[in-house]
Amino acid sequence: MTAPIEKKALLYTGKAKAMYATNDPEILWVEYLDQATALNGKRKVPIEQKGRLNNQIASLIFKDLAAHGIVNHFIDQPSDYVQLVRRVTMIPLETVVRNAASGSFERKFAVPHLTKFTEPVLEFFYKSDQLDDPFINESQIQALNVTTPATVAEIKRQALQVNQRLTAIFAAMGVQLVDFKIEFGLTTTGKVLLADEISPDSCRLVDSKTGASLDKDVFRKNLGNLTSVYQEVLARLATVEEA
Amino acid sequence: MTAPIEKKALLYTGKAKAMYATNDPEILWVEYLDQATALNGKRKVPIEQKGRLNNQIASLIFKDLAAHGIVNHFIDQPSDYVQLVRRVTMIPLETVVRNAASGSFERKFAVPHLTKFTEPVLEFFYKSDQLDDPFINESQIQALNVTTPATVAEIKRQALQVNQRLTAIFAAMGVQLVDFKIEFGLTTTGKVLLADEISPDSCRLVDSKTGASLDKDVFRKNLGNLTSVYQEVLARLATVEEA
Ligand SMILES: Nc1ncnc2c1ncn2[C@@H]1O[C@H](COP(=O)(O)OP(=O)(O)O)[C@@H](O)[C@H]1O
Ligand SMILES: Nc1ncnc2c1ncn2[C@@H]1O[C@H](COP(=O)(O)OP(=O)(O)O)[C@@H](O)[C@H]1O
Ligand SMILES: [Mg+2]
Ligand SMILES: [Mg+2]
Repeated sequence: MTAPIEKKALLYTGKAKAMYATNDPEILWVEYLDQATALNGKRKVPIEQKGRLNNQIASLIFKDLAAHGIVNHFIDQPSDYVQLVRRVTMIPLETVVRNAASGSFERKFAVPHLTKFTEPVLEFFYKSDQLDDPFINESQIQALNVTTPATVAEIKRQALQVNQRLTAIFAAMGVQLVDFKIEFGLTTTGKVLLADEISPDSCRLVDSKTGASLDKDVFRKNLGNLTSVYQEVLARLATVEEA
Repeated sequence: MTAPIEKKALLYTGKAKAMYATNDPEILWVEYLDQATALNGKRKVPIEQKGRLNNQIASLIFKDLAAHGIVNHFIDQPSDYVQLVRRVTMIPLETVVRNAASGSFERKFAVPHLTKFTEPVLEFFYKSDQLDDPFINESQIQALNVTTPATVAEIKRQALQVNQRLTAIFAAMGVQLVDFKIEFGLTTTGKVLLADEISPDSCRLVDSKTGASLDKDVFRKNLGNLTSVYQEVLARLATVEEA
């Protein structure tokens, strides 16, 4: 018999979530926030319902991934804004997987928007608000002692698995998964575990029919009402996941 | 019996060298120019003797590397400003090897100047004046079809070999090799061959005793007379290579 999980001290308030300790040292209480940020937090705006929608989307995705053999930190979604997750030691890398050219890739290499890649492109960014999340290669990851080569290899392996399953989920929703960002942590036994969130905040999503953005780009580029876009994503996801 | 090499049509004038065809399709006539550029060519200044000094330095280094088993494009130095090299199809990558933090690494990761790395750091930049030589990782190299994974692996292998020998040469000259940039090409039979130049234009060199810059940073940062610095490098190199 395990005690019910209780929310304890606030550990950290990030750009999208507030993380609390619980009565179980292995479990975190995550509250998804009703706000959106851009430019690494320099622009911050309240967005109605966003926390609830992202929490529900991320919870559905994490459950789907687990059901497809991709172990991750998700434990439970006890309420609209709250997720319980397995606490890990975060690896300070943002892992980006790209299926088509967009964003920084498109800008850096002057490649036409949404050019499809034969193989998914993998990129790492060193997660540091102070350094503005610089693009980093594997040699630099070693030089800065960010993590071991074995962990980098395992992150790459899992990232490609996540990409395969996510691409399938979104395709079933009539959505093209252009690219996404994920974060990993290490469990107390040293295992690499998918953590953080997967939501329209961290995925670049395009409606397969209309080409319309169904992600945070709606906020970044002032393309319309973010809440209704995230509502649309959740509605389609719920249909697919309940099928 | 082979015919003497004659200079033919100008093929390309770059930022530091002019490349001419010769009567032998496998051989290029390289003229090192008396000019220095910075900011990817946006700043360009005539520098007395620079072409001659860099040609002599690069020729001595290429001969030393060949003598130490590192095959490269150098064939002969027929005169002060001229080098004959084996013509290759250039791979549009600048390969950077770093032994200590400086330049873009230091800026990006806020690491103290000249922090020594346990292992050399390897970086690739996509050689494109138009794109401003962006930093590129191996996955992006594949996505853009820059070259094959096997060629990238071979470039890395050779770059580390070059670093080992160059570090030894410069150490014997009382100079710390902080980092350097090299370029490779493919021979007609598909072999990866070290090409372009190795000189104080492409190496970050620091006097081991005084800490003074002995490279193009003297020009980039207006630290003094570039000609006399390159003269000093050539004098020390000549002493070492004749020993
Ligand atoms: N399972 C976990 N264990 C510990 N930390 C986590 C876990 N999942 C996510 N985190 C961290 O908690 C924070 C989540 O809040 P977020 O608003 O995304 O922050 P940030 O602005 O730093 O991206 C991030 O720093 C993330 O790395
Ligand atoms: N062996 C070679 N065969 C063919 N091209 C070469 C060889 N060595 C160097 N090059 C190319 O010739 C040019 C050398 O001139 P440089 O002034 O350095 O040009 P850039 O401004 O393009 O760097 C470079 O573009 C380089 O890639
Ligand atoms: Mg975050
Ligand atoms: Mg050059």
